[in-house]
Amino acid sequence: MSASLSPNPKFTELLNRLTEINDIKAAISLLHWDQATYMPPGGAIARGRQMATLRRLAHEKLIDPVLGELLEDLRTEETHLPYNSLEASLIRVTRRDYDRAVRVPSQLMAEISQHQSATYNAWGKAREADSFAIVQPYLQTTLELSQEYARCFPGYDHIADPLIDLQDEGMTVATVRSLFEPLRQQLVPIVETITACQPLNDSYLYQIFSSKEQLEFTIGVIHCLGYDLQRGRQDKSLHPFMTKFSIDDVRITTRVYEHHLEQALFSTIHEAGHGLYEQRISPELEGTPLAGGASSSLHESQARLWENIIGRSRGFWEWFYPRLQGVFMRQLGQVTTQQFYQAINKVTPSLIRTDADEVTYNLHIMIRFDLELAMLEGKLAISDLPEAWNERYRQDLGVIPKTDVEGVLQDVHWYVGLIGGMFQSYTLGNLIAAQIYDKVVHNDPEIPFEIERGNVKRLLDWLQHNIYQHGRKFTTQELIEQVTGSPLTIDPFLDYIRHKYEYLYKCKL
Amino acid sequence: MSASLSPNPKFTELLNRLTEINDIKAAISLLHWDQATYMPPGGAIARGRQMATLRRLAHEKLIDPVLGELLEDLRTEETHLPYNSLEASLIRVTRRDYDRAVRVPSQLMAEISQHQSATYNAWGKAREADSFAIVQPYLQTTLELSQEYARCFPGYDHIADPLIDLQDEGMTVATVRSLFEPLRQQLVPIVETITACQPLNDSYLYQIFSSKEQLEFTIGVIHCLGYDLQRGRQDKSLHPFMTKFSIDDVRITTRVYEHHLEQALFSTIHEAGHGLYEQRISPELEGTPLAGGASSSLHESQARLWENIIGRSRGFWEWFYPRLQGVFMRQLGQVTTQQFYQAINKVTPSLIRTDADEVTYNLHIMIRFDLELAMLEGKLAISDLPEAWNERYRQDLGVIPKTDVEGVLQDVHWYVGLIGGMFQSYTLGNLIAAQIYDKVVHNDPEIPFEIERGNVKRLLDWLQHNIYQHGRKFTTQELIEQVTGSPLTIDPFLDYIRHKYEYLYKCKL
Repeated sequence: MSASLSPNPKFTELLNRLTEINDIKAAISLLHWDQATYMPPGGAIARGRQMATLRRLAHEKLIDPVLGELLEDLRTEETHLPYNSLEASLIRVTRRDYDRAVRVPSQLMAEISQHQSATYNAWGKAREADSFAIVQPYLQTTLELSQEYARCFPGYDHIADPLIDLQDEGMTVATVRSLFEPLRQQLVPIVETITACQPLNDSYLYQIFSSKEQLEFTIGVIHCLGYDLQRGRQDKSLHPFMTKFSIDDVRITTRVYEHHLEQALFSTIHEAGHGLYEQRISPELEGTPLAGGASSSLHESQARLWENIIGRSRGFWEWFYPRLQGVFMRQLGQVTTQQFYQAINKVTPSLIRTDADEVTYNLHIMIRFDLELAMLEGKLAISDLPEAWNERYRQDLGVIPKTDVEGVLQDVHWYVGLIGGMFQSYTLGNLIAAQIYDKVVHNDPEIPFEIERGNVKRLLDWLQHNIYQHGRKFTTQELIEQVTGSPLTIDPFLDYIRHKYEYLYKCKL
Repeated sequence: MSASLSPNPKFTELLNRLTEINDIKAAISLLHWDQATYMPPGGAIARGRQMATLRRLAHEKLIDPVLGELLEDLRTEETHLPYNSLEASLIRVTRRDYDRAVRVPSQLMAEISQHQSATYNAWGKAREADSFAIVQPYLQTTLELSQEYARCFPGYDHIADPLIDLQDEGMTVATVRSLFEPLRQQLVPIVETITACQPLNDSYLYQIFSSKEQLEFTIGVIHCLGYDLQRGRQDKSLHPFMTKFSIDDVRITTRVYEHHLEQALFSTIHEAGHGLYEQRISPELEGTPLAGGASSSLHESQARLWENIIGRSRGFWEWFYPRLQGVFMRQLGQVTTQQFYQAINKVTPSLIRTDADEVTYNLHIMIRFDLELAMLEGKLAISDLPEAWNERYRQDLGVIPKTDVEGVLQDVHWYVGLIGGMFQSYTLGNLIAAQIYDKVVHNDPEIPFEIERGNVKRLLDWLQHNIYQHGRKFTTQELIEQVTGSPLTIDPFLDYIRHKYEYLYKCKL
């Protein structure tokens, strides 16, 4: 830890306790990473038990009354320290974590944990049988547990508020709705206009591309983006994710489809975006609760900034595309940069969120967000969920799932977590990314030209300086205002979409 | 856990506490496995801290006075239960672990743990510089800590006794010496006689064998031996080892040399031997402290039984050699089974323990064992260790290390552990393996013929029934007597060596 830390022995005691919790959590993350990458099938049952044991231990350590007393004892000291100092931030953020954790009875935590494992298993079976009915009773319990969880935090305006706050501190149904409603109103006609245009040709992406070469190329790309492979690695898993065990061991996973070039490429850049954030947190925060992303939405904003705003830009491929052609000369040798750029930005209203382009993506999210709220409010019965889902897809995207797997069973979120707070971060992340990048270019107009030359260093340094280094010191809203000078709005995102897709589709949006 | 468990709530409480400790230890094992296989270099510092934190946690849970009280409360119950029942065994073994753990002050444990990391780093530097002097002061402290540790267990006859007991419960310097002294007296002349014979030709093993194909073949071999790849896996690491996270997730590692066929093959079979033991522990022991090998020496006996007694036997290769030829036709197509059998059993007095053949191997161990005792007794100063080491190599094996790396710096043991108790298990393991296999063949003379047909099932079932299933229920000595009907002796091992090598070297031993 930093030498700048106050020598107050209460601080030292606090730090020791937090390091212990941090290390238990790192072990949990490793148990999870291993489960998703290399664990033999036989290991599953014991692994579930091991993760539950360590989660319980970490929770017990966090709600230890001695920790609460330490935080009380440090209250005066905190007020005398600068808000953004390591010490004040550590006390402030730990108090937040502590206050939240002690509100929830251990019994409820254990019930939720146990129920989540059972539900996840049932979800697997439901997907295999393509039948929502199998998981429906589990989801009913999930809903009840989610409501019970929310009621541990009385004083909310909407029952989903505590659940949203858990992912994106300070956000509420009201703040999210004030963004989502106008966003949806503008996006639906944009999608309709684009759908009426001449579709872009993305057939080049559906040739055979060897997995090995795809993987090597993607690793080359993220290395160029600044992802440090001495302090990270990439492995394959069913669902890509980023995880970290310390700021010097930040790992990502990806998946590769031989017949579809986009999957490995963009999921790798996405996860590397998460990874760049974690790898560039200030070293003095390592081992403390401050060494993480500010929130789910801010983390997602960085993944989407790198994946979409940079990774799907014309300028990015100006430099990278000749290199990609070099690897796949037979497949892409005769495809121009512009053709490739069009292919990776084709807009198609579709059923599956994770395959969605960046124009329709947020509609997928808003469907889920609204359905979550309706369930929590008691206005939508679990039994009516599949129908409500399909109806909203018809309305917003003009497509209708033929099966539950294509519909309500597609995302894992409700089946491993709670209902509520699970989806808004994705769209908030897209909005934040656009607002931040708008500011980036305003501050340093050279950056897009640097990227055209294959050089992201100025961008990365800017992000590190303004965002990454701070870890969890600031809340999402604090960071956005600090960085962009205004609260979160939908305008930069819509400007970005309009500008990019008007050019791509040669139409007025 | 087993339904047969007494419904006594004290048992349930005991079990819950033990499962928690077990799960923390599983996480420690995973942190270690990952460090040795996939961890990026940057992860090292935080990983050291994480392992130390979890080790401390596991130790705290084990020495919790409430656990001691539970064990006291269950004392009466224990005496009424059959000795080999799950319940009685669990109480008995836990009491042993508990009694041992509470004797050692936490402060000393922490000091040892911290010192071990520092020493391991210094060892790395000493090896790089090929200079014992670099690690000498560390080893001095290790010696003092080892003595301090031993003195936590007053009442011993020899100061090394508590350290030996830690690995091989019930063994002492006296019992080990009573085996090692006559063994050495007989082995030294056997080695001399063999060395005077016409050397066997092992040049076939030093061609180029592709790593990938070596790995695939070794995995095929251990699959045939019964190692369950649904409940285990093999990865590469600098030093091969076996580790387990549950009886359904037992992993091994290996290393491959393209220019030397023996390395991957026999280190894989060796580690798979450890793995077979762990995978075949009775499922009702899973998650308890009983789910492990009886002792270091018994574990080693199974690794050596599979590696040497089976894996280097003529009968084994009767079936496997044509398959190996199939993979490496160009290299081995014209080498006969008998030539291959001779090559993998060539005896050469050498400097490096891990490369030693099974005749000279125990001489390497006994050198280390005697030096450990001399250091602990204060009769050998750390500064004189390299010279003493070299002198014993000259006496026993007729070879003299030219450098420290070839000599006293070669094994990691003293540099990550304590001095004392670190080496005897290897030779005890060889003796136990021979004594057990002698009994196996006596009980079921068909087994060697089955092995010639590539079928180890009868052997494996025998070992599972008589040894593996019991986990830690019995001590080494109890198991040996149960299984072979007599205490451990050196005769079966010497008979095995004489019989095998008289045939191979065509001489009287």
